[in-house]
Amino acid sequence: MIPKVAMIGGGSWATAIVKMLSDNETPKEIYWWMRNEEAIDHLKKYKHNPNYLSSVEIRLPDSHISNDIVHIIQQSDYIILNVPAAFLKETLKEVTPELLKGKKVISAIKGIVPDENQIIGEFLQQKYQVPLKDIVVISGPCHAEEVALEKLSYLTIACLEEELSAYFAGLLRNRYIKTNVSDDIFGTEYAAVLKNIYAVASGICHGVGYGDNFQAVLISNAIREIKRFVDAVHPIDRDIKESAYLGDLLVTAYSQFSRNRTFGNMVGKGYTVKSAQLEMNMVAEGYYAVKCMHHINLKYKVDMPISRAVYAILYEQHSPQQEMALLTEHLN
Amino acid sequence: MIPKVAMIGGGSWATAIVKMLSDNETPKEIYWWMRNEEAIDHLKKYKHNPNYLSSVEIRLPDSHISNDIVHIIQQSDYIILNVPAAFLKETLKEVTPELLKGKKVISAIKGIVPDENQIIGEFLQQKYQVPLKDIVVISGPCHAEEVALEKLSYLTIACLEEELSAYFAGLLRNRYIKTNVSDDIFGTEYAAVLKNIYAVASGICHGVGYGDNFQAVLISNAIREIKRFVDAVHPIDRDIKESAYLGDLLVTAYSQFSRNRTFGNMVGKGYTVKSAQLEMNMVAEGYYAVKCMHHINLKYKVDMPISRAVYAILYEQHSPQQEMALLTEHLN
Repeated sequence: MIPKVAMIGGGSWATAIVKMLSDNETPKEIYWWMRNEEAIDHLKKYKHNPNYLSSVEIRLPDSHISNDIVHIIQQSDYIILNVPAAFLKETLKEVTPELLKGKKVISAIKGIVPDENQIIGEFLQQKYQVPLKDIVVISGPCHAEEVALEKLSYLTIACLEEELSAYFAGLLRNRYIKTNVSDDIFGTEYAAVLKNIYAVASGICHGVGYGDNFQAVLISNAIREIKRFVDAVHPIDRDIKESAYLGDLLVTAYSQFSRNRTFGNMVGKGYTVKSAQLEMNMVAEGYYAVKCMHHINLKYKVDMPISRAVYAILYEQHSPQQEMALLTEHLN
Repeated sequence: MIPKVAMIGGGSWATAIVKMLSDNETPKEIYWWMRNEEAIDHLKKYKHNPNYLSSVEIRLPDSHISNDIVHIIQQSDYIILNVPAAFLKETLKEVTPELLKGKKVISAIKGIVPDENQIIGEFLQQKYQVPLKDIVVISGPCHAEEVALEKLSYLTIACLEEELSAYFAGLLRNRYIKTNVSDDIFGTEYAAVLKNIYAVASGICHGVGYGDNFQAVLISNAIREIKRFVDAVHPIDRDIKESAYLGDLLVTAYSQFSRNRTFGNMVGKGYTVKSAQLEMNMVAEGYYAVKCMHHINLKYKVDMPISRAVYAILYEQHSPQQEMALLTEHLN
């Protein structure tokens, strides 16, 4: 049985994963859903996604590319969700629990479903009755832009069933992708969400004028904040220094490609949230994530001073200068 | 009693600490030894160290600046050692255990004493009979260049005696310096030494062509390597994610100011070790550190694949490309 894998989403991370799957040697059929019809036409005609990672060549049969999500999911056994969390509900509007029945659902989304305040795994389980054991999470550290350049990258594939994570890892691995497997789907998802908040924080600090010395302190505190939170939400034995947690935080908070850091930097330099978003033409997921995390943490009450400062700046109109100066008193 | 503090060393980190001490509000006398007579004359005349952080104004009485190390130490109660580890024995040639008797000795050196293969604390204890409780370690994350710019930075002051670490922290703290205290002098020193090796590794990887995704994996593995080593050498309860360990690693491995990273980058791009050193006009401590650590680890036998790879490249003429490709198989 040749595995049939569907990608749901047309952004840069989706394009990068389609490239990985294509460059992996296991025979497979790849299906691709994206919303934008012009992009689909371009992709069929020129074999490149016109809007994201446009240098990457993608050769799929025309019939495998469609903006009919039901059709794409029907063809496939493995459904990779890869739209911004903020658009997930809208994207899955026509998708029913029956349609997903028996399929494995893979989340490559780093975000929280708005209104629901759920990570993707929880949302799939509760709204679509996908059994937890059929849910897989793909995590970095991995900027899509470097996948396009075929720079060596490591992914972590998390699933409660080790057999499934190992199998799916085997569909992604190739000459420039190495994979780790993990059974920590909750910790991996939350860490992937939280790191975007700390990347925004890191950008704000840079924009306000703090330097590399402070950035190092900020990130060293951020990983401890992540540890406190995931241990509170899902207390299993995990090493937060592993690539999927610490590595993912580092690549996002330090890299030039991070849209969250860029967004934070603009806010730190004095742009309003709105004008920073307009300029960027990309969604900074940390902006949504910090609001959702704020609500989720009303329940857990974990001490998260960095996340709280970012929330105050983005949603309560606190001055970035003043809020960051206050924050420095809570770090060590 | 006004504390009398001597700085031994004339480099950029020494200059930065003299600036911190000067900008701290506790009354104190500061003495400064440096080898270079021309630099001393310039410093007395123009109130700037001509060779390092030359923008920083330093106002000390002329009689407090000298290249007579015995004289400077005689005046002082707190002796801060701040020369490259490779030159420490030569610097202390005229210094006797009697001269240091009753004085607190503070190491701001990040390195290992060559031939002895000892960290500074061990060396001071064994060769100069300085009691362990009188030894203090100053650690970052802190690039001297950002101290010159008065960018907010956090130092960790480690000493077995909490009273002494707290007191000395109180001599350094000022409007742009915050301090943590710790009782882990061994772990703090070793981590500060090791991070230079990982900064070299990080530079080599960049030079060879690895990207940010891999860098994040490398550093996430590096902090685990540090943890394994310091836990083997000095098994106490410590959180390796604190600023003095993880933060110090981050600022060194990621910052543009890191001479170790620059050195590694040149080696990765194909410079010989010799030619890279000639071009830089600064000592990359990681170069010496990796050799010493190699010898120290013959005893402890801790699994340190990154450190081993750097050693093979710098001392066994292994190709950076091949050695790093081998290393990627040992990381996760």
